[in-house]
Amino acid sequence: MIKDKNNWCIITIYVDIYVDVGNTHTVFGILQSNQNKDYQSIEKHLEELRFSTKNIETPEDIYSRLFPFINNNIQRKFKVDNIVVSSVVPQINFVIEKFVHKYTECNYFCWVEARDGLGIDWQTDEYKQMGADRVADILGAICVYNDNFVIIDFGTAITIDVIVDRKYVGGSISPGFMLLIKSLFQETAKLPMVEIEPTLKLVDNTTIGQIKLGTIDIICRGINSIITELKQTYKDIKIILTGGFSTIAQKIIINDIIIPKLQFIGMNYYLKLIKK
Amino acid sequence: MIKDKNNWCIITIYVDIYVDVGNTHTVFGILQSNQNKDYQSIEKHLEELRFSTKNIETPEDIYSRLFPFINNNIQRKFKVDNIVVSSVVPQINFVIEKFVHKYTECNYFCWVEARDGLGIDWQTDEYKQMGADRVADILGAICVYNDNFVIIDFGTAITIDVIVDRKYVGGSISPGFMLLIKSLFQETAKLPMVEIEPTLKLVDNTTIGQIKLGTIDIICRGINSIITELKQTYKDIKIILTGGFSTIAQKIIINDIIIPKLQFIGMNYYLKLIKK
Repeated sequence: MIKDKNNWCIITIYVDIYVDVGNTHTVFGILQSNQNKDYQSIEKHLEELRFSTKNIETPEDIYSRLFPFINNNIQRKFKVDNIVVSSVVPQINFVIEKFVHKYTECNYFCWVEARDGLGIDWQTDEYKQMGADRVADILGAICVYNDNFVIIDFGTAITIDVIVDRKYVGGSISPGFMLLIKSLFQETAKLPMVEIEPTLKLVDNTTIGQIKLGTIDIICRGINSIITELKQTYKDIKIILTGGFSTIAQKIIINDIIIPKLQFIGMNYYLKLIKK
Repeated sequence: MIKDKNNWCIITIYVDIYVDVGNTHTVFGILQSNQNKDYQSIEKHLEELRFSTKNIETPEDIYSRLFPFINNNIQRKFKVDNIVVSSVVPQINFVIEKFVHKYTECNYFCWVEARDGLGIDWQTDEYKQMGADRVADILGAICVYNDNFVIIDFGTAITIDVIVDRKYVGGSISPGFMLLIKSLFQETAKLPMVEIEPTLKLVDNTTIGQIKLGTIDIICRGINSIITELKQTYKDIKIILTGGFSTIAQKIIINDIIIPKLQFIGMNYYLKLIKK
């Protein structure tokens, strides 16, 4: 046990930092370093720090934001062991990389990407273009349901990914709830902004209700139609919801489980696979 | 019969001009003046001239665009009888009004609006806020199916309107196909623009296919889910598709009839009702 000059005990804690760089938000997930965690313990212990992606322009932007959270305790000293980054915004990747090298002294650093050796048969030549967020989601889902699953991630975009017998069957990409609402507001002369909230109605007779129905309920009905067919095609397939708006989607979407931290669970598993 | 100085016969033709001012396009529909036209004859004879709404800034913008089309025949002289305008872009209404007074010498001019006396029980205090395009669609649909119908208009937005026993039951407002695709392209770092085209698949394993599926097919599946419930709730209800993208939607959407010129049929009927 190290002691400082006041004779206080200082405990050094090794942490892993998982970074999810999304189109809207960048989320830093901080977890005590120890790769053999099951998904429930990651769900429980991973601390999330969420910032607007557009405000991350320099390594200092990241350091000054993270510092108050990870060094707020004089009795504990944090050292970064591993950093895993999943990014869908290539233009800020060099900022992340500079931050890692300038400020973290981490032992190991890697980017999530679709590749061989992850135990997934991608079944398409295009898999290297797949968003790193979706790769992390898929690996996270493997930790929960080993075999057949559908992941629906409600973020800036709504992505669907289907894995059957460890094969990537395919998916879809739709605008997320916020984009749907914003696109109507920005591109029409008269329609107002509305709250992200389903109406749970068949039709509505107010403008605000009609927009909620036409943006939230209708896209969810469309997704349910796909889920229903997938459940008929692949027996025992599980439906996993994740992403910022999954708690709203859950009111309409057919689902088996909601895993808010799915992507971080996947990044933790990715690290295990890559460092083998 | 009037003759000009070369002793040619000049026939004066009275026309009505129907103007549909939409968020993307403004369409001028020109039809020989005679209010007792059935919908098939309007579909057949109405000539459509389509311009970008953002390029209409002055009365001269309109006159110079229309002139080559309506005065291209030295043996026929056109006089404007009636002008009916349905606008969802209030900021250009004064341009339209100036054009009408400065250049047309028309006999009668009116704006389409939701109001009493149209034979529709609106059943909501908000009906005066309803888009003029949807009012015209509803009146057009009354000319085709007198009683129970659902209109789905695939324009800049996708609107659904349900009329049962001449009562307005309600509807919804979603972003149109172009807005759905553009919102993904503009608000994400890596996703490409794609063609407006359904995939007719359950899932896809290419990025372009996934975006087509997630923007075109999924919204159409959502609308089909609403149509299916409406058909169970209201017996003998007819599904009418209209709007610029209805021929694409038709590949997926459950429908009874496609009426591209529904709004103009409605404006023709509106004129009859208002001038009574």
